[in-house]
Amino acid sequence: MKFCNQCGHAVSQVIPEGDTRLRYVCGACSQVHYQNPNIVAGTVPVWGEQVLLCRRAIEPRSGFWTLPAGFMENGETMEQAAARETEEEACARLGNLKLYTLFDLPHINQVHVFFMGQLADIDFAAGAESLETRLFHESEIPWSELAFRTVARTLECFFSDRREGIFPVRNEALPPLRMQPPKGLST
Amino acid sequence: MKFCNQCGHAVSQVIPEGDTRLRYVCGACSQVHYQNPNIVAGTVPVWGEQVLLCRRAIEPRSGFWTLPAGFMENGETMEQAAARETEEEACARLGNLKLYTLFDLPHINQVHVFFMGQLADIDFAAGAESLETRLFHESEIPWSELAFRTVARTLECFFSDRREGIFPVRNEALPPLRMQPPKGLST
Repeated sequence: MKFCNQCGHAVSQVIPEGDTRLRYVCGACSQVHYQNPNIVAGTVPVWGEQVLLCRRAIEPRSGFWTLPAGFMENGETMEQAAARETEEEACARLGNLKLYTLFDLPHINQVHVFFMGQLADIDFAAGAESLETRLFHESEIPWSELAFRTVARTLECFFSDRREGIFPVRNEALPPLRMQPPKGLST
Repeated sequence: MKFCNQCGHAVSQVIPEGDTRLRYVCGACSQVHYQNPNIVAGTVPVWGEQVLLCRRAIEPRSGFWTLPAGFMENGETMEQAAARETEEEACARLGNLKLYTLFDLPHINQVHVFFMGQLADIDFAAGAESLETRLFHESEIPWSELAFRTVARTLECFFSDRREGIFPVRNEALPPLRMQPPKGLST
């Protein structure tokens, strides 16, 4: 951030009176520009024993498999955001959505939240941001070709919890990866 | 938003290629400025049968009672944000924090999340943003003087769940209030 989005003057980083953190503050109109974490919302679309995944057509992680997910927009609930992303990326509609996993990713200022839901039908298809969409049994999940760690961890929890027959809401923090994985998972 | 925070040129609202929503886009450098919901994180600080509340010293809702809570910052987890706000507003430290309530407030582009926790000691005190801090039994809660609906709803759930002995994670959407409450609750 270099300029004030209210008046166009240059901003600088200062700790405002009564605050404890560096903020971008306008040198002309004194507007403080806060920067806060974003929410990514997605779903685990279930059809019997199978789960629907999308192969990404866009960066980051183009070509890798993901659960449908994307940035929550102003004016919607987390569940609405998750359902909208499922419609956009997999042309799929879900019923009985239930909050399932929440991940803190403080190194990239994001919170990822996933809802479980039952596919209403199997008339799904690749949306504009997907190369293909497919149902997977647990044994078929392409673990080494998953796009994001929060997707892998949600699927791990899902198949584990399914064996137990209960799906507790889970909140975990995922620290940054130490090394760049060669073909592995990012974020 | 009137100006690009990257180059200082005027922005206008357009739907970018491949998007479906109006965004602020820079007329010079083409930067798209997304606006997304913010997370407010707080706690239910428990001491035996009592809960710690803070009376707000700042607007909005100055003079009304609240659970300690505030905006999640970049670089922290939701739990860390909730613990930090508890330290800042009530000078209190909690153990055994557990995710409890999540509220969608789409009309103000916020998600509120509360963690339950046990007070480590009763050396709490009013922080800079509080007029006073006090432990309340259920029968003493100042329901008509609570600052925010998500605080009231979290306390309602807490006392109800305590009678049952289980505290399921709850996700609810709170629509806008139809009328301005005379002395009641706002968000």
